[in-house]
Amino acid sequence: MAKKEQDFVKEITPKSEDYSQWYLDVILKTKMVDYSTVKGCMVIRPYGYALWENMQKELDRRFKETGHENAYFPLFIPESLLKKEMEHVEGFAPEVAWVTHGGYEELQERLCVRPTSETIICSMYSDWIQTYRDLPVLTNQWCNVVRWEKSTRPFLRTTEFLWQEGHTAHRNEEDAEEETLKMLNVYADFAENVLAIPVIKGQKTEKERFAGALRTYSIEALMSDGKALQAGTSHNLGEHFAKVFDIQYLDSDNELKYVWQTSWGVSTRMIGAVIMVHGDDRGLKMPPKVAPTQIVVVPIPAKDPELVNSKVDALYNSLKTKFRIKVDDRDGYRPGWKFNEWEMKGVPVRLEIGPKDIEKGQVVAARRDTGEKIFIPEEKLEETLYQLLEDIQKNMYEQAKQFLADNTYVAHNYDELKEIVEEKRGMAKAMVCGDEACEIKVKEETGATIRNIPFEQEDLGEVCAVCGKPKKHMVIFAKSY
Amino acid sequence: MAKKEQDFVKEITPKSEDYSQWYLDVILKTKMVDYSTVKGCMVIRPYGYALWENMQKELDRRFKETGHENAYFPLFIPESLLKKEMEHVEGFAPEVAWVTHGGYEELQERLCVRPTSETIICSMYSDWIQTYRDLPVLTNQWCNVVRWEKSTRPFLRTTEFLWQEGHTAHRNEEDAEEETLKMLNVYADFAENVLAIPVIKGQKTEKERFAGALRTYSIEALMSDGKALQAGTSHNLGEHFAKVFDIQYLDSDNELKYVWQTSWGVSTRMIGAVIMVHGDDRGLKMPPKVAPTQIVVVPIPAKDPELVNSKVDALYNSLKTKFRIKVDDRDGYRPGWKFNEWEMKGVPVRLEIGPKDIEKGQVVAARRDTGEKIFIPEEKLEETLYQLLEDIQKNMYEQAKQFLADNTYVAHNYDELKEIVEEKRGMAKAMVCGDEACEIKVKEETGATIRNIPFEQEDLGEVCAVCGKPKKHMVIFAKSY
Repeated sequence: MAKKEQDFVKEITPKSEDYSQWYLDVILKTKMVDYSTVKGCMVIRPYGYALWENMQKELDRRFKETGHENAYFPLFIPESLLKKEMEHVEGFAPEVAWVTHGGYEELQERLCVRPTSETIICSMYSDWIQTYRDLPVLTNQWCNVVRWEKSTRPFLRTTEFLWQEGHTAHRNEEDAEEETLKMLNVYADFAENVLAIPVIKGQKTEKERFAGALRTYSIEALMSDGKALQAGTSHNLGEHFAKVFDIQYLDSDNELKYVWQTSWGVSTRMIGAVIMVHGDDRGLKMPPKVAPTQIVVVPIPAKDPELVNSKVDALYNSLKTKFRIKVDDRDGYRPGWKFNEWEMKGVPVRLEIGPKDIEKGQVVAARRDTGEKIFIPEEKLEETLYQLLEDIQKNMYEQAKQFLADNTYVAHNYDELKEIVEEKRGMAKAMVCGDEACEIKVKEETGATIRNIPFEQEDLGEVCAVCGKPKKHMVIFAKSY
Repeated sequence: MAKKEQDFVKEITPKSEDYSQWYLDVILKTKMVDYSTVKGCMVIRPYGYALWENMQKELDRRFKETGHENAYFPLFIPESLLKKEMEHVEGFAPEVAWVTHGGYEELQERLCVRPTSETIICSMYSDWIQTYRDLPVLTNQWCNVVRWEKSTRPFLRTTEFLWQEGHTAHRNEEDAEEETLKMLNVYADFAENVLAIPVIKGQKTEKERFAGALRTYSIEALMSDGKALQAGTSHNLGEHFAKVFDIQYLDSDNELKYVWQTSWGVSTRMIGAVIMVHGDDRGLKMPPKVAPTQIVVVPIPAKDPELVNSKVDALYNSLKTKFRIKVDDRDGYRPGWKFNEWEMKGVPVRLEIGPKDIEKGQVVAARRDTGEKIFIPEEKLEETLYQLLEDIQKNMYEQAKQFLADNTYVAHNYDELKEIVEEKRGMAKAMVCGDEACEIKVKEETGATIRNIPFEQEDLGEVCAVCGKPKKHMVIFAKSY
C-alpha cells in the first residue's frame, strides 16, 4: 500500500484505541453528518440523508402494506395540552424546547416544540372518532422532534432528530395489543432483513416504560463495543390518553366506549446502529439494501483513456436502472486513493475496469465486507452483481448474529452479572425477581440497565441473579447508548 | 337524484355564493385538512397528505435528475446567525417564532424556528466549500418551516407549512443564473404537466424580490376566482450571502473567490392551487398524475352479492399494481351516496360494477372532469383506463388554460387596469415604466400587485399604463393570495 493510501485510513482512529473517537471519525470523514452552530443539533449531509431516505422507503412501504396512512400534525403543542396526561408531561417536560414569542409579541400561552405527538394527535382524534365505523385509525407521521438533551452525539442522541411516529386507535385491548406487536415485528423484520442487524424483541420493564403507556415493547441491538442500543419501540397506550382527551366512540352495541391506542417509532438513531454494528477500522459498511451507493465503478487509467471510458460508460448505462451505482471518474486522484475512500464510505461492491480487464472481457469486483476480489466475465456481470449484493447482505447479517451470540452471556448471580457488564461487555441474560429495587441496584452499581424482558424466555435457574429471591422472568442486562 | 344525495352536495357552499366558504367546505369535508388547537397551524389529514406525497415524489425525481441531493439542516437558527444578512433579517424577523427556554432553563441566546434556511445552510457551506472542486453544491431539503402569520388559511397561508428548499452554490454568476432558471423551469413543468396548472414564468419586481436575493423569479397561476397565486419561486442570491458568511473558494486560477448562490422552493401552498384551479361546486377534482386515488370501484348491490363481489375482487387484483385504485365496499351506504362522496373527493374515474354489467361483460366508468359515462368492454379495461386518465389530465390542463386565457386582459391605461382588477377579476397585462411609485399606487388604490415581469413579453403600447411615462416592460397585475 502506498504511503498516501495508508495515511488516508490512518485518519480513522482504530476502534480498539478509542471507540467514541472511531465513531466520530467515521461519520464526519464520510460526510454523513456534521455539527451545526446550534448546540446538540446535527446537519445530516447528503450521504447520511440518502441512507435515511432508503430506510424510510423500506419502512414506509411496510407501514402502508399493513394499512397505515401518513398525515402531518403541528410542530407546536400548547403547554396546556401537553400537561393533560400527568405521567406523560412529567416524562417530557424536562427536555422540552419552549416557544414564547411570535414575531415581536409574547405569546399568551407557551408552545412546546413536539418531543413526541401523542397529545396533539389525541386532541384531533377526539373530534374525528365518533363511531366504531371510524375505527381503527391507522396513522403515521414522518417528522422532526426536539428533546433538549444535555449531552449529545450525532444520530444517537441529538436535540433535534428525524423519526416516524405511528399513532393508532382501536375498539378494544385485543386489537391494540395486536397492532403494538405487529409494528414491533415490522421493526424487527426491517432491522434484520434490511439493515442486517439482529435484534432481541421483548417488553420493557415498568421502570423503562414510555411515559403514559400501558406497556412498552422494544427491539434491542448489540453494538460492536458491547453496548446495547434500543432501536425501536412500540407502545400499547391502553385507554390512558383516551380518558384524558375524551376519545370515545359509539360501539355497535350502542354503548359509548373509550378507544385503545398505540404509538410506535424509529428514528435517525437507527443510522447510528448501522454504523456501530457493521463498521470497522477502515470505515463504514453499508448493508446493500439501504446503501446510498451499492456499486462504485473506478476506471483504471490507461494509455488509451477513451477505451476505458467508453467501456465504463457502457457498463454504467446498462446497470444504472438496476442498481444504485456511481462512477468515480474524478481527475487528480489515483485509483488506490479512490478505493480507500469508497471503502471508508462502506460501498458494498467496487468494480475496477482497466485495459487488461477489457482485453480479458472481465470486470474486477471487490467486496467491502470480506475484502475478497472476484473476476467477473462481462456477460455475467448483472446477474453476478445481484448475487453478490445478496451474499454481502446475508454475510453481514450472519456476522452480526455471530457477534451477538459470542457476546451474550448467562449471569447466574450478581458477581457473574457484574463481571459480564463491567469487563466482558455485551449482553447478560439473567433471571430476576421483577422487583424494581434489583433493577435500580444494578443500574447504580454497574451502569447497566434491563434492556427488555425477551419474548424468547429461557430457564436459567430458580432465583433472582441480583437478590436471590424467587425468579419471575429472564431479562437482558447491558450498558446502553 | 334522491334527497339524501342532494343534501350531500348541498353541504358545499357554491363558489358563486361565497368562494372562501366554498374553499373551506371542500377541504374540510373531503378530510384533506383540519384546524388544530394551535392558532394558524393546520393538520394535514391522510387524504391531503397523500396528495402531498405524490407531489413530493414527482418533484423529488426531477430534483435528482437535475443532479441535486437531499440533506437535512437544523430546525433552529441562533438569533445572531439570522441577523448576519441585514435585508434578510428585516424581511423575516417580524414573522419568526422564538425559542427561549430548553427544559427548565432560559437559553443564553434565543433560537428562531426556521422561516427559511439560507443562514444556517450558509454557515455550513463556508466550512464545506474550499476549492472549485467542491462546486457546484446542489442540495435540497424537505422540511417544515414556521412564519408567524396574522391571518391564515389552510394550505395557502399557515404558521407552519411543509416545503422543499433548494440551496446551491456555484463558481460564477452564469452558473448560478442557469441553475435559478433551470429550477424555475422544473417548477413550471411540474405545475403544467403534473398538476395541470398553466403558469406564467417571470421575474419579480425589485419590490417583491426575496429578502437578500439579487433576482427572484416566480411561476404565477390563476385561481378560479380570478386571483393569482405565486406557486413557486427561484432566487439568484448573487454573492450577498457568500460575502456575509464568508463562503470563498480557491479557483483553478489560484484566486480566492466568493461563490454565487441560489435558493428555490415550493410548498404545501401548491395544494391550495390544485384545489382552487380545478375544484367545482361538487368538490375537488384531482389531476390523475397526483390523485391519491385515481380510480374508485363502487360495487352495485345485487341479489347475488357473491357474483358482484368476486368480479370486483378480480378486477381490483388485476389493476392494483397499475393504478392507485380503491374499492368502496362499505356496508350501509347506497351507491348514489358513495358516488357523491368520491366526486367530492375528486377521484378522476369511478367504476361501477353491477349484475347487469357483468352480464354484458362491461364496466361502467364515470369521468369526474366531464361527468361523462362510458361503457368499457371488460377485456379492454386496463388500456382504456390508461387512456382515460391521460385524457382527463389533458382536459383538466386545457380547461385551466382556457380559463387563464379568458381571464387575462390588456390594460392600456389606469382606468382599464382598475376595471380589470376590481371588476372583471383575473390578470391584467400592462406596460409599466418600472418606477416603484406606480407599483405602490396600484397596490394602495386597487389591492393588486405586480405578479411578475413575464419572460414572454408583448408590445402593448409605448407608455406606462399607470403614469403615462415611457414604458420599460410588460408586467402582470392581479389581486393575489
